[in-house]
Amino acid sequence: MTRIAIVGVAGRMGRTLVNAVQEDAGATLAGGIVEPGSSLAGADIGELAGLGKLGVAAVDSLDAIADDFDVLIDFTAPQVTLANLAFCAAHGKRMVIGTTGLSGDELAELDGYHGQLPFVFAPNMSVGVNLTLKLLETAARALGDEGYDIEVIEAHHRHKVDSPSGTALKMGEVVAAALDRTLKEHGVFERVGQCGPRDPKEIGFATVRAGDIVGEHTVMFATEGERIEITHKASSRMTFAKGAVRAARWVADQSNGRYGMQDVLGLG
Amino acid sequence: MTRIAIVGVAGRMGRTLVNAVQEDAGATLAGGIVEPGSSLAGADIGELAGLGKLGVAAVDSLDAIADDFDVLIDFTAPQVTLANLAFCAAHGKRMVIGTTGLSGDELAELDGYHGQLPFVFAPNMSVGVNLTLKLLETAARALGDEGYDIEVIEAHHRHKVDSPSGTALKMGEVVAAALDRTLKEHGVFERVGQCGPRDPKEIGFATVRAGDIVGEHTVMFATEGERIEITHKASSRMTFAKGAVRAARWVADQSNGRYGMQDVLGLG
Amino acid sequence: MTRIAIVGVAGRMGRTLVNAVQEDAGATLAGGIVEPGSSLAGADIGELAGLGKLGVAAVDSLDAIADDFDVLIDFTAPQVTLANLAFCAAHGKRMVIGTTGLSGDELAELDGYHGQLPFVFAPNMSVGVNLTLKLLETAARALGDEGYDIEVIEAHHRHKVDSPSGTALKMGEVVAAALDRTLKEHGVFERVGQCGPRDPKEIGFATVRAGDIVGEHTVMFATEGERIEITHKASSRMTFAKGAVRAARWVADQSNGRYGMQDVLGLG
Amino acid sequence: MTRIAIVGVAGRMGRTLVNAVQEDAGATLAGGIVEPGSSLAGADIGELAGLGKLGVAAVDSLDAIADDFDVLIDFTAPQVTLANLAFCAAHGKRMVIGTTGLSGDELAELDGYHGQLPFVFAPNMSVGVNLTLKLLETAARALGDEGYDIEVIEAHHRHKVDSPSGTALKMGEVVAAALDRTLKEHGVFERVGQCGPRDPKEIGFATVRAGDIVGEHTVMFATEGERIEITHKASSRMTFAKGAVRAARWVADQSNGRYGMQDVLGLG
Repeated sequence: MTRIAIVGVAGRMGRTLVNAVQEDAGATLAGGIVEPGSSLAGADIGELAGLGKLGVAAVDSLDAIADDFDVLIDFTAPQVTLANLAFCAAHGKRMVIGTTGLSGDELAELDGYHGQLPFVFAPNMSVGVNLTLKLLETAARALGDEGYDIEVIEAHHRHKVDSPSGTALKMGEVVAAALDRTLKEHGVFERVGQCGPRDPKEIGFATVRAGDIVGEHTVMFATEGERIEITHKASSRMTFAKGAVRAARWVADQSNGRYGMQDVLGLG
Repeated sequence: MTRIAIVGVAGRMGRTLVNAVQEDAGATLAGGIVEPGSSLAGADIGELAGLGKLGVAAVDSLDAIADDFDVLIDFTAPQVTLANLAFCAAHGKRMVIGTTGLSGDELAELDGYHGQLPFVFAPNMSVGVNLTLKLLETAARALGDEGYDIEVIEAHHRHKVDSPSGTALKMGEVVAAALDRTLKEHGVFERVGQCGPRDPKEIGFATVRAGDIVGEHTVMFATEGERIEITHKASSRMTFAKGAVRAARWVADQSNGRYGMQDVLGLG
Repeated sequence: MTRIAIVGVAGRMGRTLVNAVQEDAGATLAGGIVEPGSSLAGADIGELAGLGKLGVAAVDSLDAIADDFDVLIDFTAPQVTLANLAFCAAHGKRMVIGTTGLSGDELAELDGYHGQLPFVFAPNMSVGVNLTLKLLETAARALGDEGYDIEVIEAHHRHKVDSPSGTALKMGEVVAAALDRTLKEHGVFERVGQCGPRDPKEIGFATVRAGDIVGEHTVMFATEGERIEITHKASSRMTFAKGAVRAARWVADQSNGRYGMQDVLGLG
Repeated sequence: MTRIAIVGVAGRMGRTLVNAVQEDAGATLAGGIVEPGSSLAGADIGELAGLGKLGVAAVDSLDAIADDFDVLIDFTAPQVTLANLAFCAAHGKRMVIGTTGLSGDELAELDGYHGQLPFVFAPNMSVGVNLTLKLLETAARALGDEGYDIEVIEAHHRHKVDSPSGTALKMGEVVAAALDRTLKEHGVFERVGQCGPRDPKEIGFATVRAGDIVGEHTVMFATEGERIEITHKASSRMTFAKGAVRAARWVADQSNGRYGMQDVLGLG
């Protein structure tokens, strides 16, 4: 059983992580951290997550639970994460990091820990998204330049402010790299009016914004006579939490190093 | 049994119409017209259509088969169609017209025949597309301003030169009209970069171009908690031919007037 | 502004209804009922729903809020609902009833109130599902016996114990009725092995059970050359709550009678 | 340029193969075979395929074109194919074989040629279907026993007599093998009535039969929070012909051996 502690256990992602750990037969909930001085220190983390009492109280510092956990899961902010990395390296712990928005310097600092502890760092922990990226690479290499047109279609909720989504762009980049193309040269992000026929090397993007769609991505490879479509649909942020717990179980058995979700899933 | 003659029987649409008439239990093939002086006059129209001998020879003028048919189907060119209208009006025949590209004057001339014979005129004879337009109107009125986001997604083959498709625009217009909106004001045809959250009255369009897709259109109405999607997929031009034959059978029983596919389908 | 009270405000559906009322610009939360003697009487119904304090305390009897509300929403149990109908009839109130599982006698008793107050009674309050039923009826009538094959495909989560879903069967029944068919005679619920070609009058059902799918239903009308697909996807029970609030606003302006969601949506 | 000859060039598949060779920049049409004594011997194979004259006459024996071609494509019948294998082995030719329905003895005889010439033998030449099988294996291994429910959904035209399709079963087998399951034990081919909740190891199949659908297959992996769907849609038999031509180009450069489409596509 992997003993897991969660940073930011009172936030939305933290509470989802508590749920994911509780559902996982190979992991146990060993602790939860709230901000220093928070009035929630001492609260039962099961109750914080809407699960009823679990008998584990939230604490406001890692020191308080240093003997209790094996792996720390952290979806917080760059400086918090870097401080936690230092703590875990010093205490023989492992980490799973879903924090985003690190600067170049912060990324370099994070990377510097690769010889000091085993940790997984991934901007999107979804098992499905990471598997999809691998499938796209395989498909693009196999279909190569055999006349398959490639299109990326994504749909998100009405509140999303950017387009296409970061995940759609990542999918396009994986496909482009496998075919020695680049999105800069071959990406087509709008088609309005008399556009003329499609260029065979184009990678097209289409965007839908509507309702409460959590996130749907399809990459289509189409030629005369057939289509292959690879689709990922997220229905809740639980998918990210479950990926993090899977990564925590996996990293518990690794030697020092920085890993990604492709490693966790054996798709490297 | 409705006796049908086909103008332009040697062309791609003409041959598809021959197939559609042959498959229809309520219609019989009464004749086929080729251009005056064509070397194909006299050829069996079944053989022209790849169906084997049907015992009906192509002719190069309507006079030659004036006693043989009840309804003429015409997917040709404006001036040919107008001449055929004059002939049919004078000889007590009916028409089904799928010709496109008429000028304003030609449309007025065509309309002038509404008191002289029963005829159906429709730019898209597909039963499914016309039904879809009706369903969209019903859906838009029922969902009204209740917070449903509307998006139109269409996919066509790699050779299509314009975007969005005419049918996608028509679908958007039907929805907009039902909601007292206009595509000019509320249509959104591209989303790239930091677009901000969706405007509730927006009608978004997304376009896919790939492979040999004949034509797929989906209109999505999405809100918190649910989505309704109305989709039409064409798999061959047979769908247009079958709609024309259905219109021919229907118009055989009508009194003088100009009709559309909504009338044929009882959706008026 | 329609003043709404909610029965069973501490349950999952009750709390979702509180959210739906709060989101609706034309409705205001006027009260919430918990079981007689419940320890939750006196609790703020906003806090019960996870929305923070709204300043409305739960009560354990309708008498306590008889002057405060116009419409009562009730998704509870048959005997509770019938008692509430008696109260509302006596006090000039209206009701929206989503309670299921009424016996024949209970249905007759409920129906007996149609002259005493305006109320909406519907087993599925989803605006989208009810609209979809109307669209299906329109489509089936228009496509009639013109050679369109009809298939119903539904997908639900892994925990669902019956198949096909009640909503899938309802969709099939609506289509069958429009075409003078019956599911008893024309419904096909399994195809395994050498089944032979499809009967043209068949209404086929296909079932998917996987993951956390809340509920997806597609009815396909397919013929040579085209397909029309009408799809409903539920993403949360919010869709049922929002339909109930819409019904409440609508029934506030009606005269005595028993109504369904088709009336609320103007699809009757 | 690979010089290709086609057996059965007057049949539907033969004519489609002619089209596929003509479209392929790396292949050239070197000959076409019709049945011995056929009246079509001597006809231009371009005209047989509806492409206009290509200047290559059909012949009724391989001897007549023995010096003209490198690779023979054969989608005919077992005994014809075995005779052609003997000829090609004796004359230093290569083969691509799409013939189905071989008995155990015939398969053994075919396999016996693996040391005498390079040949590709595959029951389904579609590049997309074969790629999809590879993607499914990758996906199944990555998702393993992590709580993803697996469902196979397939749709075909109204004339198809068996269910599920052979390709759907093959997809299910590939997934099952990757997970140490079997369709015999874990395949679920019908769900009607009170079936109870889904077994986690179940591999479910759902079948749609409607219209003119050439063939659509989706395999869904769904868990709480996300779904991955891998879909193949065939739109014409051209997809099989193009796969055969791709195999012909590939086998032209191989040493003696029996190969499958996974080898051709580099997915072995």
